[in-house]
Amino acid sequence: MLHINDIEDAHKRIMGFIHKTPILTNKSLDKLLSANLYFKCENFQKTGSFKIRGAANAVLQLNKNDLTNDIITASSGNHGAALSMAVSNRGGSSKIVMPKDTPKIKINNVIRNGGAIVWCEPNQISRENVLNKLQLDTGGKIIHPYNDLKIIAGQGTVAKEILFEVPDLDIIVCPVSGGGLLSGVLSYSKKYNPSILIFGAEPIEADDTYRSIASGKIQSNIETNTICDGLRAQVGTITFPIIKDLIDEVLIVSEENIIKGMRMIFNRMKIIVEPSCSITLGAMIQNKELFKNKKVGIVLSGGNTDIDQLPWA
Amino acid sequence: MLHINDIEDAHKRIMGFIHKTPILTNKSLDKLLSANLYFKCENFQKTGSFKIRGAANAVLQLNKNDLTNDIITASSGNHGAALSMAVSNRGGSSKIVMPKDTPKIKINNVIRNGGAIVWCEPNQISRENVLNKLQLDTGGKIIHPYNDLKIIAGQGTVAKEILFEVPDLDIIVCPVSGGGLLSGVLSYSKKYNPSILIFGAEPIEADDTYRSIASGKIQSNIETNTICDGLRAQVGTITFPIIKDLIDEVLIVSEENIIKGMRMIFNRMKIIVEPSCSITLGAMIQNKELFKNKKVGIVLSGGNTDIDQLPWA
Repeated sequence: MLHINDIEDAHKRIMGFIHKTPILTNKSLDKLLSANLYFKCENFQKTGSFKIRGAANAVLQLNKNDLTNDIITASSGNHGAALSMAVSNRGGSSKIVMPKDTPKIKINNVIRNGGAIVWCEPNQISRENVLNKLQLDTGGKIIHPYNDLKIIAGQGTVAKEILFEVPDLDIIVCPVSGGGLLSGVLSYSKKYNPSILIFGAEPIEADDTYRSIASGKIQSNIETNTICDGLRAQVGTITFPIIKDLIDEVLIVSEENIIKGMRMIFNRMKIIVEPSCSITLGAMIQNKELFKNKKVGIVLSGGNTDIDQLPWA
Repeated sequence: MLHINDIEDAHKRIMGFIHKTPILTNKSLDKLLSANLYFKCENFQKTGSFKIRGAANAVLQLNKNDLTNDIITASSGNHGAALSMAVSNRGGSSKIVMPKDTPKIKINNVIRNGGAIVWCEPNQISRENVLNKLQLDTGGKIIHPYNDLKIIAGQGTVAKEILFEVPDLDIIVCPVSGGGLLSGVLSYSKKYNPSILIFGAEPIEADDTYRSIASGKIQSNIETNTICDGLRAQVGTITFPIIKDLIDEVLIVSEENIIKGMRMIFNRMKIIVEPSCSITLGAMIQNKELFKNKKVGIVLSGGNTDIDQLPWA
């Protein structure tokens, strides 16, 4: 379990390395959904996603010796770019294991921030095999994208910033993949206000967390046919117990509603977000009654969308 | 000529009806262009563009009698939506003459704000003929999209907000079409700081203002083969003398650089803008030396882009 102090400490530690992202509101979306929505815009965060929070928190706690070797990880892209930036900032070098089908924008984002890419197949087994081999070859330290308490503490700072600005939220909706962000948000929010509701949003096409909660133990995804390229990982052994304990509900969302949410955010809010966080608005569209007349915080976790490959093109 | 007090008064008048839009900065674009950029985000403005400033200023000065009839205009879309909102807010009705090839998002934007559409061909002559006929038929009052001192005073409030937040700008870059925004920005900025440079940005494919300044009198566009659907109008008889008097330079920009600028704004800033304002960054890309090491204000005039018809799709 993670203590709220760990998140407070992480926030102090990373403050100088991250943007305090804005919370946007939008009257026309409020009207459409009969709720008051507060969008936490981590798409404007450094490297284009919330992942820099956890990566910075972990990397700032490495000692100099750790940094003489490569720092390594496996990532669908956003954690990879964030880790690359955090390691570059400390003068180290990083190697990122990435699936071959990663969108070009996420590949460029890793390279721009100084990371070197090592390719794997787009599935959990290949990802782990390539990472383990890389670790043996280089002797480098692995910083896992989510199954790590320092990462989780960093991601939890999102909730701290949201609740500082809008303390009386009824609900927070947060995407879930490996569960780093969701377990961080839960750890902070449920201590801050035990009666706040926290909903995870997960693609129907990659619903391992939903099924894991239903069965009480971690389930795998067989296929991950979702446009949410950031939500294909499997919930972790450290993140799952936190989520299982504290979550109110995981809402599974259709591809159609994910795209509908993304279009609404583009057209009404005039900001660019990834499918992997448009799922939060998709979850609201699919479950409108749950949110009626509520004050809802929505974590727009990232903006690294390939504008040449928009899902409606 | 417009007095700076007219713009101050307009600002007080419209304050409750508009958003005070944010000014964004972006380190990676600063680095790419070797300058300090300040983006005034009118894409986040009500109805998705700066046009509500001028429309609100004009409509708030109508008397009740004027509002018993339709309020009418011709518009490529953004002024139409803005006028519709401003008139709806006062309980009146509006009719908007729009070219048949207007992007769907701009059509919907007019309808959503309560305006009724009257179609014309996509050229200046048809636009004026249809508008004049409509005026004869309805007896309604015309509020011109740009050739009107009340409109110009409203648009000038953009410059007031920029210079209030960043008083020591060296340059402001502003798109030019009919010239309402540019003449408003000029009228305010050159009084505020006579040594500030103001550049207009105009498509090579619709360069009537550039040619009008060169020849000293208003020139027409023969064709307007530009993706900037908001920059196809002809500079006006009221806006042109102001521009001619005060402008430092009109920069004409290639379609290629307009699109390059738009992609950079999408990818780096994670916000949605129209081609018609991406031209400002396009002008900088095309004339990099002009802006080197300068503090540059950039008017991102609107965000009503049809996401199904992006220019690189």
